[in-house]
Amino acid sequence: MGAAVSERARRVLEECLSIAAMSEEPGRITRRFLTEPMHRVHAHLRKQMEDLGMQVRVDAAGNLRGWWPAEASNGDRLIIGSHLDTVPNAGAYDGILGVVIGLEWVRLAQAMRRDCPVEVVGFSEEEGVRYGVPFLGSRAMTGCFDSGLLGLVDANGITVEEAIRQFGLRPSQIVQAEMDGGVRGFVEVHIEQGPVLDAEGLQVAAVEAIVGQTRGSLEFTGQANHAGTTPMHLRRDAMAAAAEWITEAESLAQRTPGLVATVGRVSVAPNAGNVIAGSVAASLDCRHADDSVRRAAVDQLTKRAEEIAIRRGLSVRWTEHMNQPAVPMDLRLTAMMADAIRDAGFQVRRMTSGAGHDAMIMAPRVPATMLFLRSPGGISHHPDEAVLLEDIEASLLVAEQFLKRLASSVR
Amino acid sequence: MGAAVSERARRVLEECLSIAAMSEEPGRITRRFLTEPMHRVHAHLRKQMEDLGMQVRVDAAGNLRGWWPAEASNGDRLIIGSHLDTVPNAGAYDGILGVVIGLEWVRLAQAMRRDCPVEVVGFSEEEGVRYGVPFLGSRAMTGCFDSGLLGLVDANGITVEEAIRQFGLRPSQIVQAEMDGGVRGFVEVHIEQGPVLDAEGLQVAAVEAIVGQTRGSLEFTGQANHAGTTPMHLRRDAMAAAAEWITEAESLAQRTPGLVATVGRVSVAPNAGNVIAGSVAASLDCRHADDSVRRAAVDQLTKRAEEIAIRRGLSVRWTEHMNQPAVPMDLRLTAMMADAIRDAGFQVRRMTSGAGHDAMIMAPRVPATMLFLRSPGGISHHPDEAVLLEDIEASLLVAEQFLKRLASSVR
Repeated sequence: MGAAVSERARRVLEECLSIAAMSEEPGRITRRFLTEPMHRVHAHLRKQMEDLGMQVRVDAAGNLRGWWPAEASNGDRLIIGSHLDTVPNAGAYDGILGVVIGLEWVRLAQAMRRDCPVEVVGFSEEEGVRYGVPFLGSRAMTGCFDSGLLGLVDANGITVEEAIRQFGLRPSQIVQAEMDGGVRGFVEVHIEQGPVLDAEGLQVAAVEAIVGQTRGSLEFTGQANHAGTTPMHLRRDAMAAAAEWITEAESLAQRTPGLVATVGRVSVAPNAGNVIAGSVAASLDCRHADDSVRRAAVDQLTKRAEEIAIRRGLSVRWTEHMNQPAVPMDLRLTAMMADAIRDAGFQVRRMTSGAGHDAMIMAPRVPATMLFLRSPGGISHHPDEAVLLEDIEASLLVAEQFLKRLASSVR
Repeated sequence: MGAAVSERARRVLEECLSIAAMSEEPGRITRRFLTEPMHRVHAHLRKQMEDLGMQVRVDAAGNLRGWWPAEASNGDRLIIGSHLDTVPNAGAYDGILGVVIGLEWVRLAQAMRRDCPVEVVGFSEEEGVRYGVPFLGSRAMTGCFDSGLLGLVDANGITVEEAIRQFGLRPSQIVQAEMDGGVRGFVEVHIEQGPVLDAEGLQVAAVEAIVGQTRGSLEFTGQANHAGTTPMHLRRDAMAAAAEWITEAESLAQRTPGLVATVGRVSVAPNAGNVIAGSVAASLDCRHADDSVRRAAVDQLTKRAEEIAIRRGLSVRWTEHMNQPAVPMDLRLTAMMADAIRDAGFQVRRMTSGAGHDAMIMAPRVPATMLFLRSPGGISHHPDEAVLLEDIEASLLVAEQFLKRLASSVR
């Protein structure tokens, strides 16, 4: 890596760290939708965008939008971006990296001297922390911000509508946040937030789909009883039933390529060491890029739960809380990203995203793809979240190749 | 069942219900060590004892002790009894049945016109509710009431010593609560508090041992991670490990006659549906009448936990909270009870007690045994706790045979 290329990677990293200091809490990174530090982030990035000759506005949903029109272009623009908000006690890169790196993409586009307009977007909300509903920013940009969302209330009793007003924006103008036509595509650069690239020793990957998700809860009901006086053959032990089922859920996911199944929450009643469990509620989170594989897995697991319950003289009830289809990324744009990875000299890795991203909301409206950067240790949503300088540089080498291909591709 | 026998069974049942009304809480049965309703219980039972010609005292530990010396006997006495205290929101029979039924044993002994002195004891404390330490009454009677117990403090900051004083007794006289010699044996009649007799359609059983208990906790520590972005092969899932182990614990107990193993408490961190469990603490309660079987089972289960943890890249830590040996009942007295059951016309069932009882404390000092009465539905420590009239009558037919055998046995 040469000195010049190191410099731009270092600039990205330092920008992320500067913005990390703009937080609701001293010593921790917490930046929710339309909170005070978001003003500072906007001002900070606006300055940089304007220095790059970009036209900057904040739309009524609080999205920061910088436009570089290219030279007298009337061509369609590439949108690049990610989110500005964070989870509580977050790391310094989730979301913000994809916005800061967008400015480097503008620099690259400017250096190319080709007709390649770019819009950089910092989405106001993706994590769903303040109002329990994620993607408020990208929903507005894609025209699917339901007006009912304005009535949501945060922990302090402040509605979305009031929050928008308090931030100095006009709720009535949300419809004008919707992007107009003339978009060639959307690219989101994001840390992987998982251990796959790190485990494989790779730096970047092209994302070909956001997996679909089922979330639900199984409640096994047996009979609470005395742990000493109830012999094994007369028990209806809800914990033993749940344990058997959890083992089967793990085993099915291990046998099914690409499937993940997680039981992360278990609540036992009465939850005393000397009382046989009367009931156990166990969560199921099941994800796959192919909805039919996911549905079949969930069906099989709920059926197995019933069989286990019947054999043990228990009852079981399945409650589904979420059934969200997979979102494929644009085939052509993803192929272009994979080619760019190859052209930049890296091994081509295509993968699915196990987490949701703004690209998922953008994809139904415009061709969208994502570029993942390795997450050291797979750590995210944690202060130890990191990104390597060499991986930022790798992503910029890919960006260069991607922009070249995009500029020369047929409109 | 004739009209005469029905009458005494009904009397026992009604006595239990009368005493159930002597409670700390209106509408619920709660009667802890040396609380105000215990005075009423003492007064109520003292009257009945005196009507039977018994000499009555309350010792310094709050045990109610009635002595029927038989006619000019200098022979050793049989002690029969159980506890007067209850758990919060208790049933009407746990403990008190064994005291009330003791009065019927006195009637039977009196009717026999044989030299068979009887002491009926209502132990002041067995459940361990008020001070967190059980068996305070029987500890005093067996001379193993450690003076340190006087300093224990209840939820209101009242020490055992103060509670004894407030009840009108003298802590300094606790040593005089210890029973003198001249005891032929101790019999405790108690509801089974489990489902075994009910499931087998039997009314009574002779208890040959109180099982030994191991209680402890296993903590599996893996790595909390994103449920969507972490593929199955890169997980260190503490809940999956715990589930595998819980299944094995159940299976081992099912394969080992007489063993019970219970995982009744499970605590997951962070316990969120979309986060792989980073750590899980699971309780183990393991009981058997043979200490070597129990120890071997605990050793095998902790060893398996380590194997499971190592294979999965987790760590595991076992903390033992209790390792209480089994207490065998007296062989000769238990054989006498089994013979009495047969002589009374019932099928002889010997069983172990999975719960602790005052008989466990008495057994090291005097020959002790227990007679269990069926618990309908196996329900205990609950307002639905019940006992059938016909089972009370059955136990009294057994008592009659037992007293005959005792009176005629060689001193």
